[in-house]
Amino acid sequence: MKKARLHFPRIRPIAYEGPTSSSALAFRHYNPEEVIDGKTMAQHMRFSIAYWHTFASDGRDQFGAGTLHQGRPWERSGDAMSVALARLDAGFEFFQKIQAPFWCFHDRDIAPEGRSLAESNRLLDRVVAHAKELQKETGIKLLWGTANLFSNPRYMSGASTNPDAHVFAYAAAQVKKALEVTKQLGGENYVFWGGREGYETLLNTNLKREQDHLAAFLHMAVDYAKEIGFKGQFLIEPKPKEPTKHQYDFDVASGIAFLRTYGLEKYFKFNIETNHATLAGHTFSHEIEVAASQGMLGSIDANTGDLLLGWDTDQFNTDVKELTLAMVSILKAGGLGSGGFNFDAKVRRQSIDLDDLFHAHIGGMDAYALAFKIARRILADGKFEQFVADRYASFDSDYGRDIEKGRIGFKELNKLVLNKLGEPKPRSGKQEYLENLLNSYLHG
Amino acid sequence: MKKARLHFPRIRPIAYEGPTSSSALAFRHYNPEEVIDGKTMAQHMRFSIAYWHTFASDGRDQFGAGTLHQGRPWERSGDAMSVALARLDAGFEFFQKIQAPFWCFHDRDIAPEGRSLAESNRLLDRVVAHAKELQKETGIKLLWGTANLFSNPRYMSGASTNPDAHVFAYAAAQVKKALEVTKQLGGENYVFWGGREGYETLLNTNLKREQDHLAAFLHMAVDYAKEIGFKGQFLIEPKPKEPTKHQYDFDVASGIAFLRTYGLEKYFKFNIETNHATLAGHTFSHEIEVAASQGMLGSIDANTGDLLLGWDTDQFNTDVKELTLAMVSILKAGGLGSGGFNFDAKVRRQSIDLDDLFHAHIGGMDAYALAFKIARRILADGKFEQFVADRYASFDSDYGRDIEKGRIGFKELNKLVLNKLGEPKPRSGKQEYLENLLNSYLHG
Amino acid sequence: MKKARLHFPRIRPIAYEGPTSSSALAFRHYNPEEVIDGKTMAQHMRFSIAYWHTFASDGRDQFGAGTLHQGRPWERSGDAMSVALARLDAGFEFFQKIQAPFWCFHDRDIAPEGRSLAESNRLLDRVVAHAKELQKETGIKLLWGTANLFSNPRYMSGASTNPDAHVFAYAAAQVKKALEVTKQLGGENYVFWGGREGYETLLNTNLKREQDHLAAFLHMAVDYAKEIGFKGQFLIEPKPKEPTKHQYDFDVASGIAFLRTYGLEKYFKFNIETNHATLAGHTFSHEIEVAASQGMLGSIDANTGDLLLGWDTDQFNTDVKELTLAMVSILKAGGLGSGGFNFDAKVRRQSIDLDDLFHAHIGGMDAYALAFKIARRILADGKFEQFVADRYASFDSDYGRDIEKGRIGFKELNKLVLNKLGEPKPRSGKQEYLENLLNSYLHG
Amino acid sequence: MKKARLHFPRIRPIAYEGPTSSSALAFRHYNPEEVIDGKTMAQHMRFSIAYWHTFASDGRDQFGAGTLHQGRPWERSGDAMSVALARLDAGFEFFQKIQAPFWCFHDRDIAPEGRSLAESNRLLDRVVAHAKELQKETGIKLLWGTANLFSNPRYMSGASTNPDAHVFAYAAAQVKKALEVTKQLGGENYVFWGGREGYETLLNTNLKREQDHLAAFLHMAVDYAKEIGFKGQFLIEPKPKEPTKHQYDFDVASGIAFLRTYGLEKYFKFNIETNHATLAGHTFSHEIEVAASQGMLGSIDANTGDLLLGWDTDQFNTDVKELTLAMVSILKAGGLGSGGFNFDAKVRRQSIDLDDLFHAHIGGMDAYALAFKIARRILADGKFEQFVADRYASFDSDYGRDIEKGRIGFKELNKLVLNKLGEPKPRSGKQEYLENLLNSYLHG
Ligand SMILES: [Co+2]
Ligand SMILES: [Co+2]
Ligand SMILES: [Co+2]
Ligand SMILES: [Co+2]
Ligand SMILES: [Co+2]
Ligand SMILES: [Co+2]
Ligand SMILES: [Co+2]
Ligand SMILES: [Co+2]
Repeated sequence: MKKARLHFPRIRPIAYEGPTSSSALAFRHYNPEEVIDGKTMAQHMRFSIAYWHTFASDGRDQFGAGTLHQGRPWERSGDAMSVALARLDAGFEFFQKIQAPFWCFHDRDIAPEGRSLAESNRLLDRVVAHAKELQKETGIKLLWGTANLFSNPRYMSGASTNPDAHVFAYAAAQVKKALEVTKQLGGENYVFWGGREGYETLLNTNLKREQDHLAAFLHMAVDYAKEIGFKGQFLIEPKPKEPTKHQYDFDVASGIAFLRTYGLEKYFKFNIETNHATLAGHTFSHEIEVAASQGMLGSIDANTGDLLLGWDTDQFNTDVKELTLAMVSILKAGGLGSGGFNFDAKVRRQSIDLDDLFHAHIGGMDAYALAFKIARRILADGKFEQFVADRYASFDSDYGRDIEKGRIGFKELNKLVLNKLGEPKPRSGKQEYLENLLNSYLHG
Repeated sequence: MKKARLHFPRIRPIAYEGPTSSSALAFRHYNPEEVIDGKTMAQHMRFSIAYWHTFASDGRDQFGAGTLHQGRPWERSGDAMSVALARLDAGFEFFQKIQAPFWCFHDRDIAPEGRSLAESNRLLDRVVAHAKELQKETGIKLLWGTANLFSNPRYMSGASTNPDAHVFAYAAAQVKKALEVTKQLGGENYVFWGGREGYETLLNTNLKREQDHLAAFLHMAVDYAKEIGFKGQFLIEPKPKEPTKHQYDFDVASGIAFLRTYGLEKYFKFNIETNHATLAGHTFSHEIEVAASQGMLGSIDANTGDLLLGWDTDQFNTDVKELTLAMVSILKAGGLGSGGFNFDAKVRRQSIDLDDLFHAHIGGMDAYALAFKIARRILADGKFEQFVADRYASFDSDYGRDIEKGRIGFKELNKLVLNKLGEPKPRSGKQEYLENLLNSYLHG
Repeated sequence: MKKARLHFPRIRPIAYEGPTSSSALAFRHYNPEEVIDGKTMAQHMRFSIAYWHTFASDGRDQFGAGTLHQGRPWERSGDAMSVALARLDAGFEFFQKIQAPFWCFHDRDIAPEGRSLAESNRLLDRVVAHAKELQKETGIKLLWGTANLFSNPRYMSGASTNPDAHVFAYAAAQVKKALEVTKQLGGENYVFWGGREGYETLLNTNLKREQDHLAAFLHMAVDYAKEIGFKGQFLIEPKPKEPTKHQYDFDVASGIAFLRTYGLEKYFKFNIETNHATLAGHTFSHEIEVAASQGMLGSIDANTGDLLLGWDTDQFNTDVKELTLAMVSILKAGGLGSGGFNFDAKVRRQSIDLDDLFHAHIGGMDAYALAFKIARRILADGKFEQFVADRYASFDSDYGRDIEKGRIGFKELNKLVLNKLGEPKPRSGKQEYLENLLNSYLHG
Repeated sequence: MKKARLHFPRIRPIAYEGPTSSSALAFRHYNPEEVIDGKTMAQHMRFSIAYWHTFASDGRDQFGAGTLHQGRPWERSGDAMSVALARLDAGFEFFQKIQAPFWCFHDRDIAPEGRSLAESNRLLDRVVAHAKELQKETGIKLLWGTANLFSNPRYMSGASTNPDAHVFAYAAAQVKKALEVTKQLGGENYVFWGGREGYETLLNTNLKREQDHLAAFLHMAVDYAKEIGFKGQFLIEPKPKEPTKHQYDFDVASGIAFLRTYGLEKYFKFNIETNHATLAGHTFSHEIEVAASQGMLGSIDANTGDLLLGWDTDQFNTDVKELTLAMVSILKAGGLGSGGFNFDAKVRRQSIDLDDLFHAHIGGMDAYALAFKIARRILADGKFEQFVADRYASFDSDYGRDIEKGRIGFKELNKLVLNKLGEPKPRSGKQEYLENLLNSYLHG
């Protein structure tokens, strides 16, 4: 990377220094080159940086103006396109220094929107060309691309679920381009987060018709991907409550209901975000397990929320316990395949220093790397898995097996109970024992 | 009904006295005999009394003993079976006096549990025989039956999702009997509420295997119903969070996901409870609309919760606005068919007088009846429906119609936007206007 | 008002047309000139328009750009000051047409911020001078003024609770000016909403020191008001969770704790916002009653939230039941004195038409007016009050009276129970009866 | 302890075996005899067992019968008094084996309630006499006593806030006895948890009068304690929402408001429960800091809740991160004085084995002990404290100091800003850096 592009001149590439390091700008657990089972940690973790939070956003909230951009010199590079290009340079410098092998973006994060769709497409093309160079130069790859169908006022009442067919058409055109661009940059996945696909009040809404339109839209996307030869995995990212009160993709289960209803289930997996899981009333692990139980675990938007607050705070997750549980579920499911851990997280509005961007990602990467290692140790020991297997052992033989095989019904089971089995004997779930066992891995 | 059975001697049958009545023991809006469109209000509303709350429960909560039974003389009728029979007499006297044409029960609400399943079945048979007489005598019918698979400690870790096949078998035997009994009493539906079908912690749980078992169980129920010729509608009643932290049937959408995953969707509809909807983060109307959009709206458990509290308070619903919105959705969906409005609601723990049972149901029935009338007026006027139809009109012709018909794709829509349509023009959702219009019906 | 200023040319002043009106741009319940008990409804209700939501905000949310200003021609009046002045004209035209006798503002709502405090003060002075003219011309008065100490990045870590004394000083200077300006415009109250007075994490916070600083700040305000002869009522507006995770003024009770701890209780009352009450886990009525029980009920920020969402949605409140209960509590407390009902509410982001501003306020004003009338009828009948008085009658005489008078202790009461009173007899709380009684007023 | 009393024959006293122990029935972090700063860990931690959860409760919930007692042989010891005495023996055997130096109880946990207050008092006296012997024999002490004023139906509408003066008197008599008994057993504190001191609906409630009665009651308690020479610390335990919808002691702040309003603040401190803190929308640490900021930090009810559920789950807390933050706040406040860490926590309803009682408490004690050690290390290093001190340094001199000393006002600060200070420079809050620093202590 050429000197001219040095946007973080005082930050050296973040190095692994081990758990005893006292440096705040070093990894303590994430060693990208460490080889485990024939793969490097970088390959295992497939960390990705979310361009929208880390570069496009300025820290504004509903109660105040942005705080972050005034400390970022590249934000004063001139006209919108110059800023976009300089920001991308800064981005790739950051990706390299933080040692993240992937990035993710929405079309409108990386390039300014023009006065017409044609102009927007041209502006996007210019930035994509630059991104392609930067990817080549740095070896950094695109985990996934997506289209922003929610920020522009035209989408205030939804994109593919907008009551106006004109908006549907516009969204179709925008996603067409985003798919092309994602393919161009070698994106390994393409994400559909339902932005404003939902409704505020049934007083003005035809729920069924809107869901039909959403399904039509996704079928068109599937068809167009085939047409252009885009082989990336399609992912649905469920989220409840924000920005519309009733988002159609509330959680993984509602995503499954939707996909199966409209015959889309074989084309999609899920991109699960921690903060979206908890807003829906579920744990992160629950959403992972539900997706995995259907073979639909795709990728992770790595962040956390604040369970005492009622909105998506998109914080960096440093809770090693929660992440260890998630990692156990992910590893048992066979990993993420073409997915990865994308830091869909933002520094706090008060974290205005350039090095705060590094602290934030270091904390998240270290917590995930440590959780990965602990989870592997847990699975290698097999104590939890054995406990669970033993707990369900009665289904491995005899009438238990018949139940699983569908070879027995109410009448036979009734006879068994009345004539032979009698009253079952309750067995302890041993929750506290297991929680202690978990803590012995976390605080050994 | 014979004099000997007078358990509410001071309460005369509740009569309709109209909106200006000053009597607290009269209907102001529910006139069972009023004929609308060729059906009586009793036939329209199909109100049902929930035996568990109104007769079996004693008002205990996690912090204190029951308060309700000490004011009910029939609860001191002697041994458990004598109490059960006297209670049923009191129940049917209540159903008559409150003018409810239906009732609902769990097997263990109406009869004591014996020391063995065989004994439980015998005890149940005795009570069912009495119930059959009382039904005949009074003309009151069974809206639905169900089995209690959650109160007995044997079910502490679930019934069909219990890790122990023995408990699965026991539950199968119990539901077999409950189906038979429901058929015997002419039950028009049979409800599956997932009691403890869920999990507390993934540390001891195999989520996939538990869901497989739940599906196996429901398939057995479908098969057995066919075998015995039970023609009632099967209903799933979704509920999140209680009593297990992660209930599998979190909401209607997760129910749809489950049913479609396991090929059960054509045998089940949903029994939607207001308080369960809100615990899951949805409005009552949302759950109704989601079920209706799949043709799976079955029945209603009529109650409400307290949105500032985090558990199922099962209160009587007197919010005419909320009920009017629900009624509009139900009527648009073509009504409830074999379902009805079952008051799955309990008097507050401090409402210990016998007449409180009447006040509570009068309030609920009046609120529902008024909501029904307002909803009919709203639909007759057609203002909201017209507004919504107009809002989606662009999908009724041209490329909008092509989208709905699947005759157009991204490429054509992209061309349209670039060459012809250009930028869409945002249109107001008019939410406040519509909210005011709604209030003009409620406070005319 | 001169023709040149007609910003809502197609909207005539909103007139009262009565409950049967079918006009969407008329009052159905709020008749400003209707005289009740010697005061007009306008005098009773003291409605106020919140300038920030209705004129300064543009509908942006965390997920998208503003939608509202593009339909408002005055927003394209030229430079920032020209827009500010034109917007104020539009504001006063709106206040008149909607028949609101009061308005409220933050300093930075009405005038642009300059490059220095001195410049900001000069810009503010220009707008205030114009506001003074408009007030004189129209007769519209200022219910309260306040300072925006949260939007500018300088306040990102709080104003008077900022760890930097420099920011404290800046906030002091800004409030000094806001107090002067409020006095100048005849403001009847001055509100302190704790903007970012709270903390995100204890890792970087000295809670005690921050609260000491907040108290010091309020003491300075009290002193300065005396000094300049500002006689308006000081009001604290409690709010939890937003924008900082832990706001110091969480609810009325925490406000009382704070004021009493620092000897400020005699200088402040509370401005209670419905949506803030519910975010704190309380009902609107609860917060009113808590403030009233201490003689500290000051004013109302009239809006509502969405209890299924976890943030301040600031919607117009059309729930007549909730408002009736609030009105009963307010009327029993003797009314609001110098306070009023300020619509701290915003049209939904999709409500982009100019007439949506009118619909929204008409709905809120009608709902409040209707609630006022129903509440007066309830209090005139006295049924609820009598019920409550009877319920506590045992404290009006004998040992009950001694308890209230502090003339009896544990020993005497113990003797009474052991020797005379024995076991108390539980009495029904009659909640369902009372809920039905309430509905008979709402749906008579 | 005599052999005859061996209720946990297969469990040996739990010993400290260090972090590498693989025994599930050993301490890994809590070593009672380890001396730190001249005090043993037992003296530092002052762990206490909550008799109600660990011995009196049977695991029932709103949806099912108790599961726990059937595996406890002492629960089948005969009549109620025999069970009570055997249970107490089992309790003290447990306290010894788990190495807890303290216990806590409600009057009705330890002795059955009689048919009259006089009989209840006699029954209580018998059990207390036995408890006194057991305390003497084992050296185990009473951390605090309290009275159960919420389980019996007489208290369904509150105790001291009951609308019936008769119930107030009864509660007074019961607390009189509980104070005597607590004194007799050397209790170091006495706790007032507001049981049903709150209201369900304002329709039947006089909030002001109820709060006046609550204050009268507490004043009587203060007087009576003086009279009998009880020197223990009085503690208020705040809790929101349960069992009444609006509990008067919602959180620490509302407790402070109440105590200060009624002149009770110098007689009370707070007993803070983790799960109650979070139900009120606060963190555990927040409640600790608020109490500490007023010198009112008394004792801790050590447990945790489930933030995805809406009620008090009273689980054992094994979250070392949360506990470390709490411990830092407690140690900075100078510790708990006469208070301690009382495990107001219950095994899950499925944890029916006797050893589950041990696993649960071992997990809680180890987590607290580890947190204590980490917190001490954090405070010894002083990095966080230094960071915070630096952040507020501007208040240590110059005009900052004047602000704290009350020597400066709005006018002087305004001049300073206009003439000298100008615009403040925002400084990063460094939240992510600090979170990483915290993790370096937790996962070193
Ligand atoms: Co995301
Ligand atoms: Co998010
Ligand atoms: Co139900
Ligand atoms: Co329920
Ligand atoms: Co407000
Ligand atoms: Co608000
Ligand atoms: Co407690
Ligand atoms: Co608790």
